[in-house]
Amino acid sequence: MIATSSSKATFLITASDQPGLVARLAGFFAELGLNIVDASNHSSVELSGTPRFYMRIEVDLDGLTRPAAHARLGESVSRRSLEEAFGRLAHELGATWSVRYADSIAKVALLVTREATCLYDLLLRQQSGELPCEIPLIVSNHSTLERVAESFRIPFFVLPITADTKRAQEERLLELLRRHHIDLVVLARYMQVLTDSLIGSAPPVINIHHGFLPAFQGAKPYHQAYARGVKIIGATAHYATAELDQGPIIEQDVARVDHRMGPDEMARVGRDVERVVLARAVLAHLEHRVIVDGPRTIIL
Amino acid sequence: MIATSSSKATFLITASDQPGLVARLAGFFAELGLNIVDASNHSSVELSGTPRFYMRIEVDLDGLTRPAAHARLGESVSRRSLEEAFGRLAHELGATWSVRYADSIAKVALLVTREATCLYDLLLRQQSGELPCEIPLIVSNHSTLERVAESFRIPFFVLPITADTKRAQEERLLELLRRHHIDLVVLARYMQVLTDSLIGSAPPVINIHHGFLPAFQGAKPYHQAYARGVKIIGATAHYATAELDQGPIIEQDVARVDHRMGPDEMARVGRDVERVVLARAVLAHLEHRVIVDGPRTIIL
Amino acid sequence: MIATSSSKATFLITASDQPGLVARLAGFFAELGLNIVDASNHSSVELSGTPRFYMRIEVDLDGLTRPAAHARLGESVSRRSLEEAFGRLAHELGATWSVRYADSIAKVALLVTREATCLYDLLLRQQSGELPCEIPLIVSNHSTLERVAESFRIPFFVLPITADTKRAQEERLLELLRRHHIDLVVLARYMQVLTDSLIGSAPPVINIHHGFLPAFQGAKPYHQAYARGVKIIGATAHYATAELDQGPIIEQDVARVDHRMGPDEMARVGRDVERVVLARAVLAHLEHRVIVDGPRTIIL
Amino acid sequence: MIATSSSKATFLITASDQPGLVARLAGFFAELGLNIVDASNHSSVELSGTPRFYMRIEVDLDGLTRPAAHARLGESVSRRSLEEAFGRLAHELGATWSVRYADSIAKVALLVTREATCLYDLLLRQQSGELPCEIPLIVSNHSTLERVAESFRIPFFVLPITADTKRAQEERLLELLRRHHIDLVVLARYMQVLTDSLIGSAPPVINIHHGFLPAFQGAKPYHQAYARGVKIIGATAHYATAELDQGPIIEQDVARVDHRMGPDEMARVGRDVERVVLARAVLAHLEHRVIVDGPRTIIL
Repeated sequence: MIATSSSKATFLITASDQPGLVARLAGFFAELGLNIVDASNHSSVELSGTPRFYMRIEVDLDGLTRPAAHARLGESVSRRSLEEAFGRLAHELGATWSVRYADSIAKVALLVTREATCLYDLLLRQQSGELPCEIPLIVSNHSTLERVAESFRIPFFVLPITADTKRAQEERLLELLRRHHIDLVVLARYMQVLTDSLIGSAPPVINIHHGFLPAFQGAKPYHQAYARGVKIIGATAHYATAELDQGPIIEQDVARVDHRMGPDEMARVGRDVERVVLARAVLAHLEHRVIVDGPRTIIL
Repeated sequence: MIATSSSKATFLITASDQPGLVARLAGFFAELGLNIVDASNHSSVELSGTPRFYMRIEVDLDGLTRPAAHARLGESVSRRSLEEAFGRLAHELGATWSVRYADSIAKVALLVTREATCLYDLLLRQQSGELPCEIPLIVSNHSTLERVAESFRIPFFVLPITADTKRAQEERLLELLRRHHIDLVVLARYMQVLTDSLIGSAPPVINIHHGFLPAFQGAKPYHQAYARGVKIIGATAHYATAELDQGPIIEQDVARVDHRMGPDEMARVGRDVERVVLARAVLAHLEHRVIVDGPRTIIL
Repeated sequence: MIATSSSKATFLITASDQPGLVARLAGFFAELGLNIVDASNHSSVELSGTPRFYMRIEVDLDGLTRPAAHARLGESVSRRSLEEAFGRLAHELGATWSVRYADSIAKVALLVTREATCLYDLLLRQQSGELPCEIPLIVSNHSTLERVAESFRIPFFVLPITADTKRAQEERLLELLRRHHIDLVVLARYMQVLTDSLIGSAPPVINIHHGFLPAFQGAKPYHQAYARGVKIIGATAHYATAELDQGPIIEQDVARVDHRMGPDEMARVGRDVERVVLARAVLAHLEHRVIVDGPRTIIL
Repeated sequence: MIATSSSKATFLITASDQPGLVARLAGFFAELGLNIVDASNHSSVELSGTPRFYMRIEVDLDGLTRPAAHARLGESVSRRSLEEAFGRLAHELGATWSVRYADSIAKVALLVTREATCLYDLLLRQQSGELPCEIPLIVSNHSTLERVAESFRIPFFVLPITADTKRAQEERLLELLRRHHIDLVVLARYMQVLTDSLIGSAPPVINIHHGFLPAFQGAKPYHQAYARGVKIIGATAHYATAELDQGPIIEQDVARVDHRMGPDEMARVGRDVERVVLARAVLAHLEHRVIVDGPRTIIL
């Protein structure tokens, strides 16, 4: 009983749109005596085919200890029995769904290379309580940022990568993620492309990409941006998929630059955008606001 | 029957928070066979007292012609019977509510003085279909903008105001609003303070205020802003209440200024912010997204 | 004499960086007794090769009537003799330069197709005095916007274009530009690619491009942006060059979008960005703030 | 000689506007053979009285070792002789001026209370080379943040303040500032009002103020902002003067908030704005870009 009291659960649901969905879903929680604290749903404008239905429901779990819940879920009411009952409803509705409990703190692994900005930013936000997660380990292909990890008393693993060792090191990385029960991997300026095989086996991976307008690919993007005289630079946080920079976008933002700024100053301004965009994306994921539906995300 | 088909209705609901509200409200529409297209609800963090519940529900009215609706609302199913049934539910829940039908185009009166920017902006957005409303008349205390009204073929009424004539002219204004069945009054840079008496009798009034950081009151705000060297100027759109610039805020935005700009250029930049902020506020009102709850608004 | 009094001139200068440039340039005006009202210069950080020097100097021409100017430029002091003298200095410094007089109002031709937003925006800013220019004609490949031109009493020319008539119609366009002494062409959502030959013969051309993050090319960019779930859309104003969307960027900006917005609403938000970006770019050009140096611009 | 080579100097100049100022100033450096790397000047639009002239000149000091400099400044050419010569020119022009050498790293004292965000932000930017300064000490009226100072190996002084001890502790603070040759004091969320007497004796002081639209004064501003339903919150960095929140504004920015955010989340968003605004203001000061002229600043 204790495990279920005084907490909140957030459900994300996706389905083909159909009448009565909100009533069925809200009705489910009402019958259990669980109060809906915040919810929103949306039916997409589809360019072709059936509209899609997306919903986020945040419920107060206090009600699980009351008679209504017992009557529906049986005497041994628990999160598991709640999930089983919800799963049956979702099955009926042809919906995919997931749940996250506010008191079940996610475990996040940070992967970094040499740049400290995003790393510090995430560590400080975690430390101040802004990011509801634990950070049990930091992994890098270089030892540069070890001191930072130490000052936050977080285990730091160096997995140097060469063309020959990549496969083997990814195996070690996966083993680390499993051993620490990692729920989310954040590439906080990790300068290595992950293989499809790793992405297929790992928990969700969020990457930060310094994307430009117009986009500059390849080496030294800030040098290219400077040479081209762009007036705005940007960053994009997205889930990593097999096609590295093509995964579903979670958050984007930009900053203005001008002719006084050389490539180094543009990179400095860019770092400020990157860290804010990455932090917002990680927070949205941790608050269970992100529905991935094919190539896009819905943030509810 | 025709009147109810092929359209959408948007309900806004406010109540003291209580378990089961979403299920009751969504269930109401599900029983009628009306699909919820978009909805969101929120329970406020209250600094004192009970949390407040806010919800916006957009439903497809096509279902009103089907048996489920007939079974519940009787053979002569109509928007009126829908509203009566919803009103009974709201009464049970202790909720205040309102409804707007997408095919019932709001009638908006624009009040202006001499500045054309906001006026043109609203007229063009209405003309291009961005703002779902009609604009049956423009009222001014000066004749300056008559030509603009003419080029859009909209009746233009001049009601010059002096201290002596104010009360009488406001009576004439009220009469105009009534005769044209006006649903919303927009003060698009109307340089007259409305009396409490007028605000009490008129439909909702939205005003645009060029509010600064720090706020400058009194005459020539841009001159004051320049003298003080502010780096940002802003605008606030709000409902007009008895205390003119204290009404519930609907939308705000800002723009950067710098030392190269004299008061006139600041005013020019300010006008661009004002018109965008005012247009967004009017759109939010017309889309029935704004709940006014005491001194604040909730935009759903 | 009258022609030179009570006005300002703005010089733009580009050169290879070298010591003493500012002193030589400022000294030139000081000797003539012309006060510098606003100036800025910048030496670029070059990724390779020599740094480049850029300068904008705004001078008060009142001094041209005083003895100092006569002593230097001869009794028949004039704008022409001022330019000749400045040209000799520029030649010594290996600089390229241009000048614009505040009282010499630029003539701008607008090219449009069917969308009214950018057209209205530029017309209204010109009318209100924000854009220091005349607009002697509007040219379109469709008659859709003729009524707008009429309401502003501006001649409107329809030059319908097919694959067969393109070359001939561009000749007629060039003839119109010449006959009206056009200084700047603005493509305010003109849905035709200009040929290299036209761009080579016409005055400077500014284009507005609804550029996305990541960039979407080809047809229906807002549909692609929606399908991809981008969180930000943008617009880019640039000089048109032989490679249409590759010309030097003058101004860019973005706006946030979310999952509630279908392609049409994204297009609506996009239009608001486009018109503001285009207006800022045109203003920067008219105020003689833009130096084009190879693939980029410097805005001073 | 060594001390003057391979570096840059930045001059800020303010004067009553008069013809020839730019030529005189640029000429001064040209005669010495010093290249101007970046400069800008501006003559203000004055609401009353004479226009003011503002200029920032960044010169390369390499030229000081060459014959031109020796010819003008004498054999023992030095920064002091450069300043003396410039001072004579400024005196002739009735100008006030200051100079900062890029290789003369400013010493900055941070004053904090309990909030870590701004402190960390400044420390990390200093560490990464973004802020060209040293931070020889951190002073607080609480011991809360001592651990942060330790992790950056910066001396931390606790000066607890009560009504009785305020005067004495400010004396100790002044003594610390003097002993460490502090050039700039940054109030990075220091929750104490400085006395006029301290501000009169200390180096320049920059404060960060979480300023709202509309402004909320007194206790718990985020609670007031929430209650009022504002859509935007902001922050202002300014020089501290005798009237605490009335000093010349250096930088401002804002962020959007919505009804889902309670006071705590608004405070979290506000902290992100505060730290960015404070960092930009400190950087502008350190780069010698800020001219204070009466109640306002000019950022060049």
